[in-house]
Amino acid sequence: MISYLLLSIPTAVKMNGFACLPSFTASDFFFGGLAKPGLTNNSLGSVVTPANVMQIPGLNTLGVSMARIDFAPGGLNPPHTHPRASEILFLLSGQLDVGFITTANVLVTMTICEGQIFTFPKGLVHFQQNNGNVPAVAISGLNSQNPGVQVIAKSLFAATPPVSDNVLARAFQIDTQEVDEIKSKLAA
Amino acid sequence: MISYLLLSIPTAVKMNGFACLPSFTASDFFFGGLAKPGLTNNSLGSVVTPANVMQIPGLNTLGVSMARIDFAPGGLNPPHTHPRASEILFLLSGQLDVGFITTANVLVTMTICEGQIFTFPKGLVHFQQNNGNVPAVAISGLNSQNPGVQVIAKSLFAATPPVSDNVLARAFQIDTQEVDEIKSKLAA
Amino acid sequence: MISYLLLSIPTAVKMNGFACLPSFTASDFFFGGLAKPGLTNNSLGSVVTPANVMQIPGLNTLGVSMARIDFAPGGLNPPHTHPRASEILFLLSGQLDVGFITTANVLVTMTICEGQIFTFPKGLVHFQQNNGNVPAVAISGLNSQNPGVQVIAKSLFAATPPVSDNVLARAFQIDTQEVDEIKSKLAA
Amino acid sequence: MISYLLLSIPTAVKMNGFACLPSFTASDFFFGGLAKPGLTNNSLGSVVTPANVMQIPGLNTLGVSMARIDFAPGGLNPPHTHPRASEILFLLSGQLDVGFITTANVLVTMTICEGQIFTFPKGLVHFQQNNGNVPAVAISGLNSQNPGVQVIAKSLFAATPPVSDNVLARAFQIDTQEVDEIKSKLAA
Amino acid sequence: MISYLLLSIPTAVKMNGFACLPSFTASDFFFGGLAKPGLTNNSLGSVVTPANVMQIPGLNTLGVSMARIDFAPGGLNPPHTHPRASEILFLLSGQLDVGFITTANVLVTMTICEGQIFTFPKGLVHFQQNNGNVPAVAISGLNSQNPGVQVIAKSLFAATPPVSDNVLARAFQIDTQEVDEIKSKLAA
Amino acid sequence: MISYLLLSIPTAVKMNGFACLPSFTASDFFFGGLAKPGLTNNSLGSVVTPANVMQIPGLNTLGVSMARIDFAPGGLNPPHTHPRASEILFLLSGQLDVGFITTANVLVTMTICEGQIFTFPKGLVHFQQNNGNVPAVAISGLNSQNPGVQVIAKSLFAATPPVSDNVLARAFQIDTQEVDEIKSKLAA
Repeated sequence: MISYLLLSIPTAVKMNGFACLPSFTASDFFFGGLAKPGLTNNSLGSVVTPANVMQIPGLNTLGVSMARIDFAPGGLNPPHTHPRASEILFLLSGQLDVGFITTANVLVTMTICEGQIFTFPKGLVHFQQNNGNVPAVAISGLNSQNPGVQVIAKSLFAATPPVSDNVLARAFQIDTQEVDEIKSKLAA
Repeated sequence: MISYLLLSIPTAVKMNGFACLPSFTASDFFFGGLAKPGLTNNSLGSVVTPANVMQIPGLNTLGVSMARIDFAPGGLNPPHTHPRASEILFLLSGQLDVGFITTANVLVTMTICEGQIFTFPKGLVHFQQNNGNVPAVAISGLNSQNPGVQVIAKSLFAATPPVSDNVLARAFQIDTQEVDEIKSKLAA
Repeated sequence: MISYLLLSIPTAVKMNGFACLPSFTASDFFFGGLAKPGLTNNSLGSVVTPANVMQIPGLNTLGVSMARIDFAPGGLNPPHTHPRASEILFLLSGQLDVGFITTANVLVTMTICEGQIFTFPKGLVHFQQNNGNVPAVAISGLNSQNPGVQVIAKSLFAATPPVSDNVLARAFQIDTQEVDEIKSKLAA
Repeated sequence: MISYLLLSIPTAVKMNGFACLPSFTASDFFFGGLAKPGLTNNSLGSVVTPANVMQIPGLNTLGVSMARIDFAPGGLNPPHTHPRASEILFLLSGQLDVGFITTANVLVTMTICEGQIFTFPKGLVHFQQNNGNVPAVAISGLNSQNPGVQVIAKSLFAATPPVSDNVLARAFQIDTQEVDEIKSKLAA
Repeated sequence: MISYLLLSIPTAVKMNGFACLPSFTASDFFFGGLAKPGLTNNSLGSVVTPANVMQIPGLNTLGVSMARIDFAPGGLNPPHTHPRASEILFLLSGQLDVGFITTANVLVTMTICEGQIFTFPKGLVHFQQNNGNVPAVAISGLNSQNPGVQVIAKSLFAATPPVSDNVLARAFQIDTQEVDEIKSKLAA
Repeated sequence: MISYLLLSIPTAVKMNGFACLPSFTASDFFFGGLAKPGLTNNSLGSVVTPANVMQIPGLNTLGVSMARIDFAPGGLNPPHTHPRASEILFLLSGQLDVGFITTANVLVTMTICEGQIFTFPKGLVHFQQNNGNVPAVAISGLNSQNPGVQVIAKSLFAATPPVSDNVLARAFQIDTQEVDEIKSKLAA
């Protein structure tokens, strides 16, 4: 792997947790994995294909990455956060309901169409849903080479080890039986 | 209000959204609002009292803040994130179950006692619960003068305008009736 | 206009040179201007349509932006730099020769096809050229809300006031008559 | 040891001078060393117990730390700086005279009581003194995992090798005999 | 005044506490005040002439500044810190004993001659002394447009209002009479 | 090699691509290589001698560096950028025409004399030329320990592998024969 600063430094090192190579080629800055649609035949009807420093070694220290999001009709990219990045989404095709929620619990939402852009501030919960009849595809830019993603429902109800029923029941004001049902469905 | 850089700059300005005063006194760097216990007679049995740039004008540009968290026996500071800060918590009294969830959906959790410390990485979902028989009190340091807080359940089920039932039902794999029940309870 | 930090701050302020509004709507985070192809009927056969804080007020403090680049067959986005951003480019359609030059004067270059990604480190000279027979369209993510662009040939040979013939002649090892010819063409 | 970014990266690396482990447990984010009072039976009547990345491996890259400061009656935490952090101090018990000095040589000072907060801007000389009749205890948050501390008198009069008498005599406008007396006392 | 970001932004704003003008000229990036020697006929035999954003409006947001330091024979630039900058010093003429003290109280020191460079890490106490028979002149680069300076002896013994005799006496292990003598000399 | 953070950390590590030593001496913060004039007997009549982390191991993490620039009469430091630093230039002797070009293609230029300062914003194309009859010498401060330099003409016309004639011909509106002539001269 290679990093930006290393473009002028001839020594092998490690940075940000990624090994850096003493030499590099154009392929270290290239990725072809977003060319094809991701499979959306899952319970949510959506899939995210990342293009960050895990896939593109040359991104190390560059502070930017991308992702492709495919949506079946009705597909949902469920509420999630990126702990280390803001996001700017360009809708390649289809139609999406998009939204983020502020720290004052205000939902900022609208419907966007092909070719339109919406932005999601760093660290805030956000989601996108395809309410159209055809698939939708989006490309997002993120200002971190390793933005991270935390899908809210999964992180709370399908963590390992599990978050206690009591914590979840009180947080969502449901009973522990309902918690267990959600857990069993999200673990599937 | 006053900011750090202004300590040597004689002009009135605004920075980071906060007005800066051309002069200042020690009281701009002081706050007494954490001295008394917060009231925990709410449904969660916990309350957070912040001490950030909203309360302490002199914190502007200093990149640090605090908060006091009071817990009744059984009280829960429910799953939440700070989009702009890591947190380090010192337990003044009592006993807490603490935990955060990684982007790989791993729950990192333990029980801490009086005088002990636990840390929560920037932007990750975390919570604390008092499983003891006496009240618990914690003091947290955060590396932002304006860390922000997003309480997960409230932000999803009690936003204004509301997040659609359909998004929440699919995200948590529950039916819309259950969504409405949670919404009505969390809005109360 | 609105900024990220203001999502929880009720005061009108200015930040990073952009006025911030005390209230905001979803449209402050939206932009529709990349939906249609830009006109490529110019001497270079390419056009860049930006989507940064100038177009999207809500991007202020978010540290990210986008741009759409349209290329006629043979069109060139000529050598340029972004003084404040790294770039990650996704090719929507067509085929591009892409390249950047390191501080060691190494050209890092390859040909990318529809759906493929290439990255350009912050501040380094780079370019893209459509060597195909059909138009090409790219979407780029940049890690600044105000990345800036400096087109090398224009900045040197079409600045106001002009860079002296002598500086340009010596830098490019050409005579001043050649400098004047380039100047007259690039000024057109 | 472990770092924040590594929560989603499966490779062993080193960052910021700290080794990172490929796996981690909750104990990497925990510290119990502030639970008991530090011993204040020294010439200054105060002691600082740190809780930073040296004690808590998981703090690496998190940008935050804590410290406990114990004061005997009359005890002084003498003038010092943190080259890499601002500080926010919460007084657990007792009463303190606190102060920092600006770059314009203005002393910003006041007396704080149990439960009150005072803040110290990054890099500025500051101190705390217990002018009460009972011990005082404070907990500080700092916005660096490795804030560093430079105790002014010790750094100038007890450095190894020593700062020359002449430099210190001129800086403090004392004679070299007085310098030597201070040196001998502070070295003790 | 003008700032870097404003080079492409046509609106009048304020940033970092400095007003920004909607237009600018080359003189906003120029300063002639370091051309002549500063007067060293003071008790320390040295004088610092700054060239930062206070003198050069265009430096706002650029993150760099300079200073000229003139030394009479024997002149001392006494122990001080820059809370917001590292420093790299180039000796124009003469000879200097230079040193900084680490957070481990290690003095890092040497003698440098004309044309030589020494560096001082951000926030650490450092000093320079001309032990030669002729004047010395140095030019320093600092990585902040507003580095700030805190002269240790002055900040402790000549602050307004004064730091209490008791604090200083205990910190330096001297009696309050000696404190008062230093105070009276440094206030002069 | 050694880094700033390591001043208080006893472990050998690597940071920013530079190895760090567990111990260090003053010489790690020293450099003597700018004391003598660089040789200007080249086609441009100028030479830059760097003093950054490559030459001064102790600069690692300090975020600052210097360079000496020598100019023969008529000598030109040709248009170039620093992708990672702003620059502040102090003219030791002689007279220089200096300039930078904004992202709006405005040339900001003036003539400076001995002892005067001019500044160059991060990432923007800039140059200096000695239009006097005697040699000129400048010392620059830069706000990065590894600022990098990209000489525009060299990077475009003398890269390895070469930038295609077609790209350069279209960018500069010249024919490919002229491109080849420039390439052959700049490769010399």
